[in-house]
Amino acid sequence: MEPADSFGTVLRKLRKKAKMSQERLASESDLDRTYISLLERGLRQPSLTSIIRLSKALKISSVKMISTVEKMIDTKKAG
Amino acid sequence: MEPADSFGTVLRKLRKKAKMSQERLASESDLDRTYISLLERGLRQPSLTSIIRLSKALKISSVKMISTVEKMIDTKKAG
Repeated sequence: MEPADSFGTVLRKLRKKAKMSQERLASESDLDRTYISLLERGLRQPSLTSIIRLSKALKISSVKMISTVEKMIDTKKAG
Repeated sequence: MEPADSFGTVLRKLRKKAKMSQERLASESDLDRTYISLLERGLRQPSLTSIIRLSKALKISSVKMISTVEKMIDTKKAG
């Protein structure tokens, strides 16, 4: 699984868990809703700034977010 | 301090600690040397894939790398 795909999957999961719409997450992270939609579908690479903004809006640490993404990449490699 | 600046500072520090030239890091991470130079000067945002490749080449976890970057951003904000 490519990093962009794993990140998208984790982002969508965290957003749903926080009961946020893409619109609200966009507004809270000061990012474009279209960009968030592209990220969730693994069609764009998140930049470091986006990772930090999104994790702040979702109220989790970006370190936690990256470690979840990395675990997913490793699991899919092993499978 | 902007995320790109902090990342650049951390990247340069880790590369020097690993006694690697930009050329060697470029070769080991399969990235362009020019891109690494731009990253170190804070002139480009690292993508998630670049963060993962660079941390692998430097033999540290990307989580550790991001957490160092975040600490630096927070310190500079407080200062």
